[in-house]
Amino acid sequence: MTKNPEFSAQTATVDEAAIKPLPNSRKIYEIGSRPDIRVPFREISQSDTGGIFGDEKNPPITVYDTSGPYTDPEVKIDIRKGLPALRAKWIEERNDTEVLDGLSSDYGRARQDDPALKAMRFELTRQPRRAKPGKNVTQMHYARQGIITPEMEFVAIRENLRREQYIESLRNSGPDGERMAQRLTRSHPGQSFGASIPPVITPEFVRDEIARGRAIIPANINHPEIEPMIIGRNFLVKINANIGNSALGSSIHDEVEKMTWAIRWGGDTIMDLSTGKNIHETREWIIRNSPVPVGTVPIYQALEKVNGVAEDLTWEIFRDTLIEQAEQGVDYFTIHAGVRLAYVPMTANRMTGIVSRGGSIMAKWCLAHHKESFLYENFEEICEIMKAYDVSFSLGDGLRPGSGYDANDEAQFAELKTLGELTQIAWKHDVQVMIEGPGHVPMHLIKENMDMQLEHCHEAPFYTLGPLTTDIAPGYDHITSGIGAAMIGWYGTAMLCYVTPKEHLGLPNKKDVKDGIITYKIAAHAADLAKGHPAAAIRDNALSKARFEFRWEDQFNLGLDPDTAREFHDETLPKDSMKVAHFCSMCGPKFCSMKISQDVRDYAREHGLDTEAALQKGMEEKSIEFVQKGGKLYHEA
Amino acid sequence: MTKNPEFSAQTATVDEAAIKPLPNSRKIYEIGSRPDIRVPFREISQSDTGGIFGDEKNPPITVYDTSGPYTDPEVKIDIRKGLPALRAKWIEERNDTEVLDGLSSDYGRARQDDPALKAMRFELTRQPRRAKPGKNVTQMHYARQGIITPEMEFVAIRENLRREQYIESLRNSGPDGERMAQRLTRSHPGQSFGASIPPVITPEFVRDEIARGRAIIPANINHPEIEPMIIGRNFLVKINANIGNSALGSSIHDEVEKMTWAIRWGGDTIMDLSTGKNIHETREWIIRNSPVPVGTVPIYQALEKVNGVAEDLTWEIFRDTLIEQAEQGVDYFTIHAGVRLAYVPMTANRMTGIVSRGGSIMAKWCLAHHKESFLYENFEEICEIMKAYDVSFSLGDGLRPGSGYDANDEAQFAELKTLGELTQIAWKHDVQVMIEGPGHVPMHLIKENMDMQLEHCHEAPFYTLGPLTTDIAPGYDHITSGIGAAMIGWYGTAMLCYVTPKEHLGLPNKKDVKDGIITYKIAAHAADLAKGHPAAAIRDNALSKARFEFRWEDQFNLGLDPDTAREFHDETLPKDSMKVAHFCSMCGPKFCSMKISQDVRDYAREHGLDTEAALQKGMEEKSIEFVQKGGKLYHEA
Repeated sequence: MTKNPEFSAQTATVDEAAIKPLPNSRKIYEIGSRPDIRVPFREISQSDTGGIFGDEKNPPITVYDTSGPYTDPEVKIDIRKGLPALRAKWIEERNDTEVLDGLSSDYGRARQDDPALKAMRFELTRQPRRAKPGKNVTQMHYARQGIITPEMEFVAIRENLRREQYIESLRNSGPDGERMAQRLTRSHPGQSFGASIPPVITPEFVRDEIARGRAIIPANINHPEIEPMIIGRNFLVKINANIGNSALGSSIHDEVEKMTWAIRWGGDTIMDLSTGKNIHETREWIIRNSPVPVGTVPIYQALEKVNGVAEDLTWEIFRDTLIEQAEQGVDYFTIHAGVRLAYVPMTANRMTGIVSRGGSIMAKWCLAHHKESFLYENFEEICEIMKAYDVSFSLGDGLRPGSGYDANDEAQFAELKTLGELTQIAWKHDVQVMIEGPGHVPMHLIKENMDMQLEHCHEAPFYTLGPLTTDIAPGYDHITSGIGAAMIGWYGTAMLCYVTPKEHLGLPNKKDVKDGIITYKIAAHAADLAKGHPAAAIRDNALSKARFEFRWEDQFNLGLDPDTAREFHDETLPKDSMKVAHFCSMCGPKFCSMKISQDVRDYAREHGLDTEAALQKGMEEKSIEFVQKGGKLYHEA
Repeated sequence: MTKNPEFSAQTATVDEAAIKPLPNSRKIYEIGSRPDIRVPFREISQSDTGGIFGDEKNPPITVYDTSGPYTDPEVKIDIRKGLPALRAKWIEERNDTEVLDGLSSDYGRARQDDPALKAMRFELTRQPRRAKPGKNVTQMHYARQGIITPEMEFVAIRENLRREQYIESLRNSGPDGERMAQRLTRSHPGQSFGASIPPVITPEFVRDEIARGRAIIPANINHPEIEPMIIGRNFLVKINANIGNSALGSSIHDEVEKMTWAIRWGGDTIMDLSTGKNIHETREWIIRNSPVPVGTVPIYQALEKVNGVAEDLTWEIFRDTLIEQAEQGVDYFTIHAGVRLAYVPMTANRMTGIVSRGGSIMAKWCLAHHKESFLYENFEEICEIMKAYDVSFSLGDGLRPGSGYDANDEAQFAELKTLGELTQIAWKHDVQVMIEGPGHVPMHLIKENMDMQLEHCHEAPFYTLGPLTTDIAPGYDHITSGIGAAMIGWYGTAMLCYVTPKEHLGLPNKKDVKDGIITYKIAAHAADLAKGHPAAAIRDNALSKARFEFRWEDQFNLGLDPDTAREFHDETLPKDSMKVAHFCSMCGPKFCSMKISQDVRDYAREHGLDTEAALQKGMEEKSIEFVQKGGKLYHEA
């Protein structure tokens, strides 16, 4: 991470590492029902199978692509201008919003008018939008009216991962195409715990899931730059990456760099958790350059506005902060409205008290004033703001456990039930909702979290932080939590908030962000496989086939992190010629089980030994051939 | 890893990194019923609680210690002499073994007599032992006769983790001792899937579990250097680390260094999977210096003896290899006797064929000769050898899946059932058995593996490799498999074979070994917590308390890897003074939820707000006090 304390808006440039396409990959777009619905994918090409493995074409694999225009060589990136406003026309066409003269927030205007901030300010020429009086501009509102928006169609195409096209390309790949199609797209029947993912996701299915509150498309009308994505348990499991500065470090440049880095490796949304200086300006730079939805925790900034004194927070300051951020384009707000006064004492005997920052701020406020939370009290008004910009709720779990000791306790579940009540209020306003979950939970208590959430929160999407399954490994909490994340994803959690190796210890750098992302992509994908997502196994199957056939380059490139895979391989076998070798460094040329296995397979195939019956018949004779032939198969590369 | 191709027995020295005690840790021994039962533990001291958190003594935490004498400053390590023969007297006293004049294996003698090997040979002055004619020297045999061996008592003490002593020290820690004892030793009731771990492990319980075949103590009479350990689902979940050279790299020095490194971080057993040059000599160096049981896959060396041509393997060569290795002191043998001729064609339609090296060698042999496996055919004779040295079986899963695609298929389960039959034959001979398991399995198919294993293998301990829950992350397979390992450990697997980040790509270096070990310690511990092991939560609770109280040093030192935790912390807050700061780099001084939470807790305690009723009463007045007091609590460190 380059430290760049003297950030200047005039000279800001994109991180070169963010705009390099991944190896053997190209950006492709699938066009929807109108030409401006252009759904991005990454297509990974493969080499053909050959040699002892027989001749087969291996068609390219299409994978979900969160990296936005950055990895498209056709797009010229200039972070000072921000990304193209992909959705601008869709929003405008709906004719239910108006362009404002300027920012509605007092604080926002003050920042905009402060000449001292000019050097770091993103110069947005576009004015903010808001719903016309009496209008509701949420995706849920449209869905409930039976309207399929371009956003809904976009995510439907995106979720299908071009599975049908891949099947078709396999069928056309050669004489054995039909068998290859069946083989390479096979997945084990999943165990879905009530989730129900159709083989083909239609725009109507998307609409219906949103209308029922089972999925959300976070898509603020002031963030037209996003490529829409969906969060719900009948879709691919998503991951979020937290970024943001603190009072102790990091600059605007660093945060934009972390954002582009996070989406390069697969972050589906990012949360800007900045708590230090220039939060408003940092967020503007991130949003304008982010093709993925951006979430925030507005209470962090509100607290900065009262100099960190929780007791001094007021509804008015908070409300202005919501409007400020909504007009910048934040797509979802974490709001800890479930931390009610009566729940605070329930945490007194915990091992680790209240570990959510937002939760502890609200707890302190409630106790100090001996009043019910102003978030809870003003929840309907918050909904009014949310629906005027289509900001989604991420109802915060302010009382989540901070240790396995505190998992699944009274305080946690009391809050969860309140979040369920608030969900119904939000839905009354057609505001999209997801529910945040823990945290720190031993494996055997994880499922109860999912079950309780489904029951009390009426199937609103669950969005969990891990959970960490043990507390004894500081420095490795991406792993302690990756275990829990995979499990809760399988049970039905729709989005997993990543945890980096620095959790509990420090602020993540670029390496930590990548480690966190890759770990959570693993967790999310393992969950998709276990749920039986119809397209999930395609990539596993293709990679396994490449592995078996010693197509090293394809094995690297089909993986989540081709760079690391290649680097690890080259540590032991650095020569390029070794990448076509039919063995690997673990066993050496003579001792390769894959090779022996292929010998067995060839032999079985050639001799029609697909059944036990065939084996019994005339094997004595054939075994002699095999010995003769077998010797020859051992040609060292 | 220092490359040291010119390894010399005369100048071999221990890796300095292996003999440094871990921070704030000291080696302690608990003495059993006789003075030579000295069970090692690592005791981690903690600082006292103070300041706003109240005054509390935090007694030291005792953790399981696999590192052997290396981390004991009282022991002088000289790897040329090997470790002290801790069990020599126990073995001798049983009076059922005899000292041989020399090695019984033809190959072993040839190596010993070869002057060219002198420079690399470990000079063992002790002669090998074998059971006297007609005697059976297995721990299972003793157990079934009602004998509690010193080994059994040793592991009983070891498994209890000094839990009772810790409770006592908490009780004596101050006026609030009883409450602290209850709090810091609390674990959530587990979900054990039929496992049943008593609050106190007695030597009799150990004996009974071994007699029933539900646990094993791998303890070859020719490996008296080991500190005994137990593998069974009613005990702590164990992990194995694979080391070993290949034809392409690594020296004896490297492998001894990897061994000491692996046990430093928590490897409970190690497997020497060498397939390159000087396998015999490498193994001797490892065993003589290993305080943990050593496993091997004898077929690897047998194959080297026939120049890598599987068809040329014979029972006689294999038999001689078993004896050669048994007399060196190998504690368990992976033997792929379940790969029967009829199962081989079942793998022909797999995505990745046979991926076990041993499995593919045997499959090739079976097909080439069209004969039943010589391992299967000679299984009773193998048992005779095993019981003469107390080598345990690790019945190999030669047909385990090499991809999620192939998981839980006909070939895999056919072999598993055969392993169950073989288990019963081994038990007839009182030979200890564990069963190897997969491999590559999506999450929702993991439990079936455990259930089938319990059913078909009569509760013999299960020992799995991962399983990997997805195949799309080469370079991160410690994580893809750590997820599966934690889950299958929870379901009842007794030992988890680690997977390093280099899996599928190359040979692990020291960093990879450590990453693999720590990941698997996490998985094993997460499983212990979920099963409700009575002592497992102690370390989590202590670390969580230290974390809450900002005892940074204690948080680092109680973790699995203090070095990395400290290093990560210091990247953001390097100054020593920051380690006593009551905040951390993630949020900065004003924004700390832990601190706010402690304020809430103090307040609730001071005002008797433990119940909601108390909260309702007279809070208005108290809230004024809180605001006054609260301001003062925000003193920035």
